[in-house]
Order: sequence, then structure tokens, then C-alpha cells
Amino acid sequence: MTVRPITLIAGIGEGLGVSLAAAFAADGHDVVGLSRSDRATGPATEAVAVAAGRYSHLVVDLTDVAATAAAIAPFADRVEVLVHTAHTLLIRPFLETAPAEFEAVWRTGFLGAVHAARAVLPAMVERGNGTIVLAGATASVRAGARFAAFASAKFALRGLAQSLAREFGPAGIHVAHLVLDGLIDEPQTDGRFGPAGDGPTGDGRMDPDAIAAACLALARQPRSAWTQELDLRPSTEKF
Amino acid sequence: MTVRPITLIAGIGEGLGVSLAAAFAADGHDVVGLSRSDRATGPATEAVAVAAGRYSHLVVDLTDVAATAAAIAPFADRVEVLVHTAHTLLIRPFLETAPAEFEAVWRTGFLGAVHAARAVLPAMVERGNGTIVLAGATASVRAGARFAAFASAKFALRGLAQSLAREFGPAGIHVAHLVLDGLIDEPQTDGRFGPAGDGPTGDGRMDPDAIAAACLALARQPRSAWTQELDLRPSTEKF
Amino acid sequence: MTVRPITLIAGIGEGLGVSLAAAFAADGHDVVGLSRSDRATGPATEAVAVAAGRYSHLVVDLTDVAATAAAIAPFADRVEVLVHTAHTLLIRPFLETAPAEFEAVWRTGFLGAVHAARAVLPAMVERGNGTIVLAGATASVRAGARFAAFASAKFALRGLAQSLAREFGPAGIHVAHLVLDGLIDEPQTDGRFGPAGDGPTGDGRMDPDAIAAACLALARQPRSAWTQELDLRPSTEKF
Amino acid sequence: MTVRPITLIAGIGEGLGVSLAAAFAADGHDVVGLSRSDRATGPATEAVAVAAGRYSHLVVDLTDVAATAAAIAPFADRVEVLVHTAHTLLIRPFLETAPAEFEAVWRTGFLGAVHAARAVLPAMVERGNGTIVLAGATASVRAGARFAAFASAKFALRGLAQSLAREFGPAGIHVAHLVLDGLIDEPQTDGRFGPAGDGPTGDGRMDPDAIAAACLALARQPRSAWTQELDLRPSTEKF
Repeated sequence: MTVRPITLIAGIGEGLGVSLAAAFAADGHDVVGLSRSDRATGPATEAVAVAAGRYSHLVVDLTDVAATAAAIAPFADRVEVLVHTAHTLLIRPFLETAPAEFEAVWRTGFLGAVHAARAVLPAMVERGNGTIVLAGATASVRAGARFAAFASAKFALRGLAQSLAREFGPAGIHVAHLVLDGLIDEPQTDGRFGPAGDGPTGDGRMDPDAIAAACLALARQPRSAWTQELDLRPSTEKF
Repeated sequence: MTVRPITLIAGIGEGLGVSLAAAFAADGHDVVGLSRSDRATGPATEAVAVAAGRYSHLVVDLTDVAATAAAIAPFADRVEVLVHTAHTLLIRPFLETAPAEFEAVWRTGFLGAVHAARAVLPAMVERGNGTIVLAGATASVRAGARFAAFASAKFALRGLAQSLAREFGPAGIHVAHLVLDGLIDEPQTDGRFGPAGDGPTGDGRMDPDAIAAACLALARQPRSAWTQELDLRPSTEKF
Repeated sequence: MTVRPITLIAGIGEGLGVSLAAAFAADGHDVVGLSRSDRATGPATEAVAVAAGRYSHLVVDLTDVAATAAAIAPFADRVEVLVHTAHTLLIRPFLETAPAEFEAVWRTGFLGAVHAARAVLPAMVERGNGTIVLAGATASVRAGARFAAFASAKFALRGLAQSLAREFGPAGIHVAHLVLDGLIDEPQTDGRFGPAGDGPTGDGRMDPDAIAAACLALARQPRSAWTQELDLRPSTEKF
Repeated sequence: MTVRPITLIAGIGEGLGVSLAAAFAADGHDVVGLSRSDRATGPATEAVAVAAGRYSHLVVDLTDVAATAAAIAPFADRVEVLVHTAHTLLIRPFLETAPAEFEAVWRTGFLGAVHAARAVLPAMVERGNGTIVLAGATASVRAGARFAAFASAKFALRGLAQSLAREFGPAGIHVAHLVLDGLIDEPQTDGRFGPAGDGPTGDGRMDPDAIAAACLALARQPRSAWTQELDLRPSTEKF
């Protein structure tokens, strides 16, 4: 009996997270999801089971390095892919954003990725392969007014991705940064920005399955031709 | 009998061009190659036949707008994908580069892409779909010393890709720019830079099949999540 | 009697060109202006005379390499600064832009800069100093819809600036690229976009004197701290 | 008796900090320096006195928001210019960098700038003018191997600068980001990287006076033509 490799999704949620779980399961992976809540557990379990894979959900605070390390340790050897999507979106005038909010946004959106990467990289380095995908946003490359806290955390994450790509690429680890330049068609987006329109792609929102397919394509790239930064946006997005 | 869509490869050569032909043929396309020579005809025909497709080779000077238009016209309606890879690599001190060389490099590397895009876009717009991939290089985003002619043509091509993406995206045409950040493992590279080493990826050179797979992945992206710029480099490349 | 160094303005016009002439004359330079017309001659002569300098105007087609070389040759030894601002703004749908227009825009906006740089660089290299400023626009870094011809020429110019900066920097030649991200408050802008509003900065338009001051500051930078790309925009500009 | 405006230097040190103090004093400003130590007090006092200005040094931990606010409050109304240069350079393999070090580098290099900006912006907004310069490094735009902590903090600072520029530019506040792409010729650099060579610019190091002059030029830009990002590097720097 073969052991299936693991895709680890840090910050799994009901939309994109479940799509990622489904896509990587279909590629032969088991999936482990990390999140502060267990809301994604049901749909992720179902999505992974469709592909005969096993889904494990771990409720963990990614901003806690010890808890994150402990949660990942038991299966760190099997993690071939880490996708980090956790973040806290904050849109607020600078002078109304407390320093503590800058810190909270940075911990969720950046420091948690450091913790997760630390937990999976040693085994990847030992095996000489692995993929790490860090998910950014429009604000990763363009910091708009009232996005100081969110954009600075996203800029930091992009810096992390670049540095890891250069440090671990020669060791066979593929590190890539996603620029998700648009709203994702998932429940969280509806909650925040209202329901999407009736169009085929949810009124200009990105289909999470399409994003997941792009992540899978990244993870499948041979080391002869790696992508380090992938932008994705709806055809109707201004950019 | 279904009519197979066409992938048009502008500037087809023996390495990457043939890989592109094979990849898109395997996806159900017929392939048309345009080039000043017919060197790629044999291997491209063979590669496309493997996938039960038809390869047509047209010897044409892409810098000649009338000839390019005439060559493409008969099958323009069926072109779903245009990949432009033609270029002239010139590395030379600025003061030893004649203005006529700037012009020649620009005509081959840039103006030919304008001609090809003009020939295929009207039918794409009418159908409301299509993909155009313009292939750049390291010099598309970083103009090194002694690369003034080549880099300025590549910068121009990147500008063209961005402008076309913004103008035709809302009409359903996906325009993407490739940043091929490294040497490609193909006969032309050996001719210019010497044979590759014995490593699995040709001494740090990019496998043309891997690049072709990435282009195919671009062309398959649903319009909910399009990439406008894709960088590709070997895991061992400095960047 | 000391010989005053020369600032050469390629593509001098009535607004920014005259401001540049005034600024560099005030810094002790004589000024030579090149342009297809002699419209700027009167105001430039006056502006330079205020600073006790001499203004020479040469009617020349910068896209003609021989004519440009011949025009510059007599005083090439004294040229310490070259500022290139010539361009043809073209905003037009891609499919309505003839290939000949792409070529015309490229010749005016790019090739003329190559010709001017070729004419002044040998003496700069021999002396081991000099400054070349190539003026770009918003379209130098972001190619919008309907800007394919203009943006690709501006992208090319930026590539030229980068390559020259890397090739000639070690020889003591400072090459810089300007990103003029906004409309300039000059007669040509009024002619094309209508008169400016009544605000202090001409309704969000850039004061050409302010741009000229920034160019002069670039030319004065010691080689210990050179700027290679300078963006300038009105405080009210969206970016 | 006129009240001199104040330039506030957050993270003043013996090299660049003192040069900034001298340059802004020569422009008619009093100078306030903030730092964890008082090492710069003597040379800064002297440098400012040369221009008949007054230097005040406040020993404060910029990562402490309350302490920073309390230190700045008494003269916040007079601050016309804030220059932030505080940072902790850390070059270390990712897996040997503790999460606590990521946090420390982020607090010093980023959060302190948030604290300082919060303290000076309300009065700037009320007056409708002011300049904030945030000093970055090569690592602000290119995150190299072993620079994960430092580069991610510098990326974050660049995001902060962009966001503040867009949020406060329309209110008349000029926010600019410096990319200091090279070593600065100051005591700290010698301590870390060894003494400079004998060349006129300290073996390819940036003269802190030249950087200070560039900052002053930024602060003097009229709002018709503002620079948002200024790169500075020695003529001999690879880039």
C-alpha cells in the first residue's frame, strides 16, 4: 500500500480552501487543513473523499508557533505541498488603524506563513522536493489608500516568498507567490461584499476551482521551468 | 466531422516551437507554423501527427505585414491560440550596435507580433474567445549592459502584451506575456552558447516541453482566473 | 574665458523644453535644442539669455541618424547633459493602428533617442562623465488599452535607459529614466486635452519648471548616489 | 521671531542621520532625532548648530507606541518632515531565524515607522502639508536568499509608504519611499562589513551627505511634481 503525499492548506476556508483540497486530492494527495475554526471540515472531507483521499482538519492558531509546529509534526514527512491562504482583510483609514491591528493583520497574514514554512521545510529539504505556494492579493503589489495594514502584511508575504524561492530553489523546493487580483467567489466574499451577480463567473469574481487548478499546475511544474509569481484575475477585472 | 481549432506558432523553431506544436496538438488542435525557414517542418509534422493532428508550415517573413496577413488569412477563423516566439538575440556594446540593428531586432521581435496579432484578432473578437501568448525573456524585465537592442525590443513586446490584455480581455481574448528567464534546451542554444551539461535538465536549461506545457495551461485557463504574465526559470537560475 | 558646458535637449518644445533650457542655463550651461520645428526657438533663447547663456536651435529630424549625428557633431565635446523628451502620443484601438503608425511612434519616441545617445556618448566616455535623461510617461510602466503603439515605444525607451545605465554607469555616465505620470501644463497639452482648470497647479497638471528642477537635481547627483528611475506626478494624480 | 519648522529623524545614527540633520538644518529646520541610544547626539548637535539650528535628541524606543507618541507630542505641530531610517539588518538562513527575530526585525524596521507617522500626521493633515520619507534598501524590492526577515520587513515598509502616499497625497502630504541600493559609508557599515577602500566614494559606498541631499530635494518638490519612490545607488553598484 502506497502512502499518499500530503497537501497542507494553512488557513483553509469554505471556498478556495475546499477547492484546493479537491484539486490536490484528485491529483493523489491526502489533505490536511489548518484553521482557527472547523467550518471547512465537512465540505473539505467530502471533496477529498470524492477522490478517495483522506482529509484531516486541525483546529490551530497559526500565529502560535508552538501550536503550529506541534500540529504539523506528526505528518511533516509526507507534506509535498504547502498552500498558505490565511489572512485578515482590513480596509481602514491609517489614523483609525491601531498599531495593535497592524500587528494582528501581520501575525495572521504573514507570521503564520513563517510558522507553517518552518514546520514543513526541513523534510522537504531532506527529500529534495516540495512546493510552497503563498497566496497574495492585489494589495501585494499595489498598496491602496486605507490598505496600510493589509497591504504591508501582503507586501511582507511577497518578500518572504521571494526570499524562500531564492534560498530553497537550488535545494529543489519550488516556492511561488500568487497575486489573486480580484474577489474570489466564495461565502466569505458574499458576507463582506454582498452576493455576486448572476453572470457565469459570479459577476467578475474568481472561481475558486480555477485558482485551485492554477495552484495544482504550479505544483506540477518540473524544476526545469518554475514560475515564482503567478497573477490571476477575472477577464473583467481592471488592472 | 469536427473541425479542429488551430494553434498558430509565429517564429516556430526546432526546439520550443516543436514542443508547442506537440502540446497543442495533444490538446486537439491542428498547428500552423510560421517561420522564415522550413527547418522545423519535419519534426513539427511528426510531433503533431502523433496526436492525429495536421501540421502546416508556411515560410513567411513575419516582418512583412502583407505577407503575414496573406499567409494567415485562409485559416484565421480557426485560430484559437497564437503563440509568438520569434526574436533575434543580439548582445553587443551600445556604441557598436548600428541603428539598423536596433531596427532589425525590433522588427523581428516586436513588429512581427503586431502583424500576427492583427491577422488573428478580428476572428477571435467575433467569436469572443482566443488566447495570445507573447514570449519574452529575462531582458523583458531587466535590460542588462550590452542588451540595448534586444532588451528594448523585448520591453516593447511586454508593453504590447499588457495593452492587448487590457483592450481585448473584456472581449474574451486572453493575452499573456511569458518571461522565459533562462536558456532553453534547444538546438539554437547549443549553437550559440555551446552544448549543455549532462544534468537532467540540460545543465540548468529549460526543457522546451515544460515551457510548452505552461503555455497550454495558460490557454486552458477559464476566464474567471487568467494569468497575464508568467515567469518561468530553471530551479538553478539566479534571479 | 571658460567654455560653458552644454545641455542638449532632444525634442525641445514650448513647455517642458523651455523650462529645461532655463533650469540648465541657470546652472551655468549653454543649451542646444533639437526639434523638427523652430517653434521653441524664441522662448528658449529668451529663457537661456536670462541666465547669460547661449541657446542654439537646430531643426533636425531625430529619426534620421545621419542628420542627427551631423547636427550634434560640432559641439558633442561640450555636451554634459542630454535630455530626450521627443515622442508622438497616439491613443487608438489596436486594430485601427496601422503597422506604419507603430513604426512612426517607435522612430520618434525611441530610435531618435538611440541616435542622440550615440552622438553624445563617445565624448562623455572619453571625459568620464555626463548625464543622459530619457523621459517616459505613465505608459512606460503600464500599457493601457488603446496605447499599444505609444506604450510599446515607451517601454522600449525604458529598456534602453536601463541598459545604458548598466553599460555606462561604471564609466561615470549617469543614465536616468523619468516616469512623468500625469499631464504636463504646457501648450501641447491644452491643444490635445483642452485648457487646464484654474487651480494653482493647472488642474492637476505638472508644472514644467518642477520637472526641469527634478532633471537638474538628477544631473547634479554625485556618483556616490545616483537615481536610475524617477517618477513624478501631481499630488492629485491617481496612481 | 520666526519659529523654525522641524525635521524629525526616526532612528538617527552617526552616519546618514547626522547628514540628514545637517542638510535639513541648512534648509532652515530645527532637527529632532529619535533613537534608542544617544550616540548621535554630539555630532548631530554640532552639525545642526553650524546652520544656526537647534538639535534635540530623544532617547526613545520607537517600537513602543506610547513612548513614541509622548516623545513627539510636544513639538508635533512644527514637524514638517519625518525621515524614518530605523532598521535591524539580519542576514540569516530561514530555518535558523527564530520567529521572534522576524518579529523584532518587523518591529524595528516597520512598526516604529507606523508609530512615528501616527504621531506626526494629524498636524500635517491639519496644516495641509508635510513630507514623510521612509528609507528602504535593496531588500525592499528584491528579497534575496537568507534575507527573509529583513526583506519582508522592508517590503512591508514599502507597502506602508505606497498606501500613505495614496491616502494622504490628496491632503497635501508628500510620502516617498527611498530604495538605498548599496552600502552607506558610515561607521555602522564599517563595523559590520569592514572598512571601505580608498576610493573617492569609499569603495563603492554611498556618501550619506549625497543621500541627505536627495531627501532634501524630495522634501522641496512642489506638489505639482512629486516623486513617490527614489532609488539611489553608487555608480559602481551592480543592479
